[in-house]
Amino acid sequence: MANTVQIVFQPSGRRGEIEAGKSVLEAARILGVGIEAACGGARVCGKCRIIVETGRFEKLNLTSAADHVSPVGDVERKFLTAEELERGYRLACNAFLNGDLVVTVPEESRSAKQVILEKGRDRKIELRPAVKTVTVQLVSATLSDFRDDARRLLDALEKETGLRGLTIDFPVLRDLPSILRENEWKATATIWQDKEVIRVSPGERKTSLGVAIDIGTTTLAAFLCDLTTGAVLAKSSRMNPQIGYGEDVLARISYAMSEPDGREKLQDAIIGAVNALTAEMTGKAGFTSQDVDEMVLVYNTAMHHLALGLNPRYVGRAPFAPAISAPLDVKARDLGISINPSGNIHSLPVEAGFVGADNVAVLLAEEPYNSEKVKLIIDIGTNGEIDLGNKERLLSTSCATGPALEGAQIAFGMRAAPGAVERVKIDPLTHEPSYKVIGQDEWYPLPDDRRPTEPKVGAQGICGSGVIEAIAAMYRAGVISKAGRIDAKLNTPRVRRSESGKLEYVLAWAKETAIGKDIVITQGDIRAVQLAKAALYVGAQYLMERYGVDYVDEVILAGAFGSYIDKESAMAIGMFPDCDLSRVHAVGNAAGDGARIALLDVEKRREIAKVARRVEFIETAAEPDFQKKFMDAIAIPHAKDKFPHIE
Amino acid sequence: MANTVQIVFQPSGRRGEIEAGKSVLEAARILGVGIEAACGGARVCGKCRIIVETGRFEKLNLTSAADHVSPVGDVERKFLTAEELERGYRLACNAFLNGDLVVTVPEESRSAKQVILEKGRDRKIELRPAVKTVTVQLVSATLSDFRDDARRLLDALEKETGLRGLTIDFPVLRDLPSILRENEWKATATIWQDKEVIRVSPGERKTSLGVAIDIGTTTLAAFLCDLTTGAVLAKSSRMNPQIGYGEDVLARISYAMSEPDGREKLQDAIIGAVNALTAEMTGKAGFTSQDVDEMVLVYNTAMHHLALGLNPRYVGRAPFAPAISAPLDVKARDLGISINPSGNIHSLPVEAGFVGADNVAVLLAEEPYNSEKVKLIIDIGTNGEIDLGNKERLLSTSCATGPALEGAQIAFGMRAAPGAVERVKIDPLTHEPSYKVIGQDEWYPLPDDRRPTEPKVGAQGICGSGVIEAIAAMYRAGVISKAGRIDAKLNTPRVRRSESGKLEYVLAWAKETAIGKDIVITQGDIRAVQLAKAALYVGAQYLMERYGVDYVDEVILAGAFGSYIDKESAMAIGMFPDCDLSRVHAVGNAAGDGARIALLDVEKRREIAKVARRVEFIETAAEPDFQKKFMDAIAIPHAKDKFPHIE
Repeated sequence: MANTVQIVFQPSGRRGEIEAGKSVLEAARILGVGIEAACGGARVCGKCRIIVETGRFEKLNLTSAADHVSPVGDVERKFLTAEELERGYRLACNAFLNGDLVVTVPEESRSAKQVILEKGRDRKIELRPAVKTVTVQLVSATLSDFRDDARRLLDALEKETGLRGLTIDFPVLRDLPSILRENEWKATATIWQDKEVIRVSPGERKTSLGVAIDIGTTTLAAFLCDLTTGAVLAKSSRMNPQIGYGEDVLARISYAMSEPDGREKLQDAIIGAVNALTAEMTGKAGFTSQDVDEMVLVYNTAMHHLALGLNPRYVGRAPFAPAISAPLDVKARDLGISINPSGNIHSLPVEAGFVGADNVAVLLAEEPYNSEKVKLIIDIGTNGEIDLGNKERLLSTSCATGPALEGAQIAFGMRAAPGAVERVKIDPLTHEPSYKVIGQDEWYPLPDDRRPTEPKVGAQGICGSGVIEAIAAMYRAGVISKAGRIDAKLNTPRVRRSESGKLEYVLAWAKETAIGKDIVITQGDIRAVQLAKAALYVGAQYLMERYGVDYVDEVILAGAFGSYIDKESAMAIGMFPDCDLSRVHAVGNAAGDGARIALLDVEKRREIAKVARRVEFIETAAEPDFQKKFMDAIAIPHAKDKFPHIE
Repeated sequence: MANTVQIVFQPSGRRGEIEAGKSVLEAARILGVGIEAACGGARVCGKCRIIVETGRFEKLNLTSAADHVSPVGDVERKFLTAEELERGYRLACNAFLNGDLVVTVPEESRSAKQVILEKGRDRKIELRPAVKTVTVQLVSATLSDFRDDARRLLDALEKETGLRGLTIDFPVLRDLPSILRENEWKATATIWQDKEVIRVSPGERKTSLGVAIDIGTTTLAAFLCDLTTGAVLAKSSRMNPQIGYGEDVLARISYAMSEPDGREKLQDAIIGAVNALTAEMTGKAGFTSQDVDEMVLVYNTAMHHLALGLNPRYVGRAPFAPAISAPLDVKARDLGISINPSGNIHSLPVEAGFVGADNVAVLLAEEPYNSEKVKLIIDIGTNGEIDLGNKERLLSTSCATGPALEGAQIAFGMRAAPGAVERVKIDPLTHEPSYKVIGQDEWYPLPDDRRPTEPKVGAQGICGSGVIEAIAAMYRAGVISKAGRIDAKLNTPRVRRSESGKLEYVLAWAKETAIGKDIVITQGDIRAVQLAKAALYVGAQYLMERYGVDYVDEVILAGAFGSYIDKESAMAIGMFPDCDLSRVHAVGNAAGDGARIALLDVEKRREIAKVARRVEFIETAAEPDFQKKFMDAIAIPHAKDKFPHIE
């Protein structure tokens, strides 16, 4: 057998053994990692840029070094700058493997851009923005009326609006004299929160823009809104560039605290992404970033600290006290965010160390605190957050679900991008599956045997919602037991043992896929999903016990982790207690919706700031019967609890 | 006669004709310009750094160019960086004249450092600073008390001080988690205005420092104060580096508005000087700039705009409306001032276009608004500001005195530095003068004929207060008439005609001086002082008319222009209306004192902000009888008004 090396692609985490001497681009193709290469590997387009990471990667159990690939060649010197080469950039087509390697595929080089859910539910949002524009005609300065320009403006604004005690943010004063005189003393003031002038423009100005961003551990989803109409003018999303510093928040906190300038680097990365998203969206809509007057950010507590440059050490260890949990209003210039420098950056409040402003945004979007009905809200991400309650009382907890429900650390897991299996059915008689791939409208193989000669989009892996459906289908079809074990005695070639002797179920044969390999669900994958769903289930159980209910009126599944989760499959594997399916709603990225609501309606900010203070945070891991409850919840759907609505 | 060239030294304005081929250092010696040259011109020390200015200088009526001096030599390449050479730096010893030239002598190269009055009167200042420190012991975070760090601190501060609704300035949050835990949850908060936490330090911190700076058109005078005791820990002063961009404020406004990045350059220059002064003073006192928590700045309206980066165009033209006149509190980080980034920079309010925060500071120091007596306050600078009034009513005006009273644009005028004549007497019989030079305790020539063989410090020129004394003495001794004309018929070699035929009076013969030339008072000098003092006198007259008084209870002469002015000479030349001399007080730099008071006593800031709004600004130049009054006031002491107290 030829000499092989290990290669790991970040941020997808896709890993494999590759024959030495192959290029990184060939390795990517073998492992199903999408790298842009417009010239098809002919070394003429310069698109397949990757970054060679160096160092000892303990979790991956390998050491990556710059000399584990061939030296930089002329074609790379042509397409890459000296600074890029120094930072480890290579062209995947021209870097040949001769040792273990970790490479990062930067956003711009990814051929399959991730599909991020930005839509959420269409909600009725009242339009009461923090920012408004007021146009006034001033009387000009004369020798008998030598009021200063600021006073003259404030007097006119008070007369026009009745607002007393307005102030002017300092940078706005700099060009006030010329702006007031530019259009014969007619000018427009942009006023924040009825108290501070944050922009003065000559003549009339109607533009008033705001941006809302959900900063997730993995992805950022952003909205550009017209604050005069509430319309969404543009949307965009991108990977969280901090992924280059650690997949999960604990790794990033560790990086921030142990590396020189670690905190600055992580903050710069996220602020850079915020600025790039803002520039992209405003550009699409015919504006510039400087036209944006307010921004609302939501994030989990660790991302909150890392984005704001706050020391994150103590949010990563018990008792998980954040530096600040109150809502924050910070000037854009103090964060290096490139909008109007006097514009405000509003952070929704944090509830507790592991329940962040993103969960607060979910509450704002779903408003259980205004409801008679008792709602159970499950927000699924790398950490799961669960809220339970109604207008009487609101409880929340956080569950360490791990990344399995997002499709990560699953043998063929991948993000919800074209090529990912997102829907799965299994015939209970033949145990044959059919599945649907993102980017293709039809199922394959078709259940009625009208098979196309080959799938239009070959499967490359399975995304989070696909994994949940696959396990639910395997359970219903008898492929796995209540305990989650694959039935080795089934008479089907789909169930087999891997080289290492572990059981697995073949979802797609190699010939159907784009990666030329069988795509399987392993016993390990099933176990990871069981642990994750058990954590959510037990969290919900504790909240219900604490609240004193044995039912909930409504279950809401939220999450920006790929696509709308299939509520039936989620209940079938026991992700949450039994409920009438008609009362289960999958709402997609509720945190993003909550951020947008806070941007458009300042009254809601005040409302949620009060609510956040009265949410009772329940620490479940410390409960004495946690282990017992958890073991029961690992069974599918549960060892004891009944699920009458799906039986 | 040998070929000669014109050379002008900035910022002193000293000018002369020099033989071509001489070095700039030799020219400086000939003209009495002090340039540091530790090696005495041997070209080995590299100290005599000067800057060759290039361009057409209309006011000076000459064109200066880099090739009007010899090319850069090896010795210069050794001592000057490439960047400095590009900026026009040369060594005065190695740059030989072959054409007209304007050179700037930077502060560091000046051998005679200016003496700036920082002292003022010792005043009783109440200590109520805006900044206080509060040390608290917090209870540590636990799983049952997981309040965020900010809340925990604010709760403890509220309990300790009773202050409710305290906020924390955003940058303080960044390291709050580690600071609170560093000394087992004991920490000290620095609180500004009883409302905002601007610093948190581990354990106990007693240090609380503030800086007050009087930013004059020509000089900056700075004080470092201990805000816990009120003590002045250090003082310093330096030239306003904006002088390189224009001697007077109108020239600087013009530069700011017409040159690319002009505003930024002027602001950077002044902020750089503020930072340098702060670093120097804190260093002397054993601290760092970052230990400073508040700063108070006072300046005239043009310097206010130029230092804060506000568009200054309209303060330089009628109706002279400032961008803002209210007091300003701006974060140090928003101005690039290198103290605690959360520290406050307080600007005293501006009264009107030409009556600035420096005059407000003078009012604060003298408090006429708390007095029964009617006070006349004359603050002498490049612009003169006059205030008149008492607790009933307060009037102010601004007079274009020009720089003569500061010793500028006087034939042998110089700043108040060692070598400047500061006191003058003239014998009415012999018309022989005796004078005192800064840096030497005795008069020369001694009146009683005990002359030393030579003066210890040779005279180099005359400073502002010296010019006033000289003219008062010339008038008293009958050298000049009431109209200010030098009596050509006097039988003394001291009175003579210059080469151009104009009359002049020889104050010091060449052999007594350090410059090897006769030091004279010209007819033009006398005329310049007459115009300046007439402007002040007429200003005071109008204020008295407007107030409805024909006397004042007290006259206060303020000014940081060199040293304490001799009140008798000032009255003798008619700088202000007659008054009992015992009620005339020379108080030195009252603006600097006012800045220090505002730093130490926040109640006084509130008081003066109210006072500034009720000061009535009188525009005198627009009055119909201004010309007539002005002509009468040109006479010495006055054409009509009597001066019984000095007759």
